[in-house]
Amino acid sequence: MTNTPAQTPRTMSPQWNEQGLIPVVTQDAETGEVLMLAWMNAAALEQTLASSEVIYWSRSRRELWRKGATSGNTQRLVEARLDCDGDTLLLRVHQEGGACHTGRRHCFFYAPRDGEWQQVAEE
Amino acid sequence: MTNTPAQTPRTMSPQWNEQGLIPVVTQDAETGEVLMLAWMNAAALEQTLASSEVIYWSRSRRELWRKGATSGNTQRLVEARLDCDGDTLLLRVHQEGGACHTGRRHCFFYAPRDGEWQQVAEE
Repeated sequence: MTNTPAQTPRTMSPQWNEQGLIPVVTQDAETGEVLMLAWMNAAALEQTLASSEVIYWSRSRRELWRKGATSGNTQRLVEARLDCDGDTLLLRVHQEGGACHTGRRHCFFYAPRDGEWQQVAEE
Repeated sequence: MTNTPAQTPRTMSPQWNEQGLIPVVTQDAETGEVLMLAWMNAAALEQTLASSEVIYWSRSRRELWRKGATSGNTQRLVEARLDCDGDTLLLRVHQEGGACHTGRRHCFFYAPRDGEWQQVAEE
């Protein structure tokens, strides 16, 4: 069933999952490349919107994680969006250096080839 | 700590979460717009790769969900990618009509304005 735009609420709130987190898609504001997916809790989102320096929640380290704090590959927030049902964020950012911990521009470098996911050359 | 590309594994496997799901970022292959985020289980991914018709797992209905089955707004797979740690998929698709259930091109139409997330006009 498709609703018309007029039927959608005027405002929306982030819908945190059972761990208090929301997935965040991060896109390069200049090139349109999807750089990575990470997670935020309420504090990470609040600090990101306040400072325009992107801060995630590290699920492995269980702590706030200012992107690029050690690598210098920071993300400056250009625009933030929340989706139609409030359970995903999209950030358009200015990315310094590579977004991926491997040094690549983005994290999505495995493609299905011959029945497995193989590394592909950087575009 | 940044690794060099040579230190990353040659192949990767999807890392399913505790519900057997993986988040999927879907991007318009022609415009680069991020259209939506949804979820797949192993069957959805297998059928999507086999048929090139994008099929998700509906967490609310708890069933496989062929995108556009009722609306006609189908997604034809152009390219699939898995990320560096295997826990996110990126699909580049050819999108028929709007990707959002509201009829909009994409789902990300709330932006932070005056301390709340407000609907913004379609770009």
